Amino acid sequence: MRFRLTPRETSFYELFATSADNILGASKLLMELLAADAATRTEIAERMRAAEHAGDDTTHAIFHQLNSSFITPFDREDIYRLASRLDDIMDFMDEAVDLVVLYEIDELPKGVEQQIEVLHRAAELTAEAMPQLRTMDNLTEYWIEVNRLENQADRVHRKLLAHLFNGAYDAIEVLKLKQIVDVLEEAADAFEHVANTVETIVVKES
Amino acid sequence: MRFRLTPRETSFYELFATSADNILGASKLLMELLAADAATRTEIAERMRAAEHAGDDTTHAIFHQLNSSFITPFDREDIYRLASRLDDIMDFMDEAVDLVVLYEIDELPKGVEQQIEVLHRAAELTAEAMPQLRTMDNLTEYWIEVNRLENQADRVHRKLLAHLFNGAYDAIEVLKLKQIVDVLEEAADAFEHVANTVETIVVKES
Amino acid sequence: MRFRLTPRETSFYELFATSADNILGASKLLMELLAADAATRTEIAERMRAAEHAGDDTTHAIFHQLNSSFITPFDREDIYRLASRLDDIMDFMDEAVDLVVLYEIDELPKGVEQQIEVLHRAAELTAEAMPQLRTMDNLTEYWIEVNRLENQADRVHRKLLAHLFNGAYDAIEVLKLKQIVDVLEEAADAFEHVANTVETIVVKES
Repeated sequence: MRFRLTPRETSFYELFATSADNILGASKLLMELLAADAATRTEIAERMRAAEHAGDDTTHAIFHQLNSSFITPFDREDIYRLASRLDDIMDFMDEAVDLVVLYEIDELPKGVEQQIEVLHRAAELTAEAMPQLRTMDNLTEYWIEVNRLENQADRVHRKLLAHLFNGAYDAIEVLKLKQIVDVLEEAADAFEHVANTVETIVVKES
Repeated sequence: MRFRLTPRETSFYELFATSADNILGASKLLMELLAADAATRTEIAERMRAAEHAGDDTTHAIFHQLNSSFITPFDREDIYRLASRLDDIMDFMDEAVDLVVLYEIDELPKGVEQQIEVLHRAAELTAEAMPQLRTMDNLTEYWIEVNRLENQADRVHRKLLAHLFNGAYDAIEVLKLKQIVDVLEEAADAFEHVANTVETIVVKES
Repeated sequence: MRFRLTPRETSFYELFATSADNILGASKLLMELLAADAATRTEIAERMRAAEHAGDDTTHAIFHQLNSSFITPFDREDIYRLASRLDDIMDFMDEAVDLVVLYEIDELPKGVEQQIEVLHRAAELTAEAMPQLRTMDNLTEYWIEVNRLENQADRVHRKLLAHLFNGAYDAIEVLKLKQIVDVLEEAADAFEHVANTVETIVVKES
């Protein structure tokens, strides 16, 4: 009944949850990538591309909903920002897998598995948090933990850069690998941007 | 008469059209760049710089108009976003020409001409679309086509990166050329951002 | 008394001034970096990190204030934008120092001292400008001068890139140094973004 009274508000929450679940699936593909051989990597890249398209559809549905709704559950600008930032995460994950295949990377440098584990954990927390937006409950721990994870990702990323530049790799290889670890770091930052947007929404509404 | 009643609304449309025409001119300079020798490149860079300054003046005029208008033809935030994103396109095109001259690139890698042709086509579509904002007619095909062009640009860009890293170029040359093809890809993305902003405006108003 | 009547408005101004003063302190650390030996650089990096954390606290205080205020001295979106862009400056300065230490840069290329002097001058102007927001007086010269400094920084940055690619450095060194001079250029751009935001606010209010 409540659903019938506020269909639009309900569907915003459902769309954000769908977007976050899609990101969680993508983070699992990144985990698979670590152990994958060349053939499997190509197949993972195809599944990632499909996930990225599904994400675009959800983002587009949110924008369309936003632009055609008179009443929104929270500020229009925050809905726009949250949808865009969830979309950014998906794009960075997709780009990372693409580059690994495109550059025919033989072996990913030690530390990348830590970057990906952090992204997977952040994806789990984000997928758990989105359904909480309706009640605004239990979200404080979510954004504190995601911010903590981003700091951890930052330290791992710095160690990786120092490792890439320590002379063990030739310059072309450094260029390829640096682009990949940088994109993974951008994905970690994107999770933090989502968490900060959620914090803004909660503080306003509370 | 109508013009006298709503001078500001009218001039917003004119300023967006001016900005898009300026971008179309810049895209023609990129086409000229492909066949240009060193001397001509320097002269093209100067004309591009002049176009970039003209674009800045238009963007600034839109912001000033926006900040001093009580009534705007559509949401203030959308006007701000549309003007900023048109300005981004100009900046990326200007940067690309600058880098070709600065790095004294001998020969642009095969595929760059495809990147530039896509940018020129997107510029034509954008210049045709801006005058339609007043009536909001016939804009659906515009943004669908620009999104299609961006996907095409993305594929060309990926092929170019793989080509740069295939061992035919030394690392320094890869660094220079990668920066140039990346900036051209950013220009293609910027056209899509403009199209997405236009879609948002149209959906809201319809 | 006035303070008691409009505590929130007052504290927004104070928080922006605090943020700008913190950036000025960070720009002095960049000046120190130029003459520093390896041991001193590490110690400067630690002080920069402390400044970056202090900046985060101020930014967070502004967002919290914004989200819990019914009345704000100027548009919410402009307050959000100004706080975010001041925060960007701090992040770029912190990243630059980090990279110099991380990559164990032996000698910074000629021209970096000019980049840093421009940043320091822009920081002085920004710190002087923030307290003027309350009265909106004497801000025109501020943003004209910051825009002029950004153009100067741009020319220095281009010269530096040409120098890095002229064959005197090996590719790995070019990669390291380019990342550092690019981040310093991003800091100069960030000062211009702050000045443009201030211009927007002043024009609206006047």
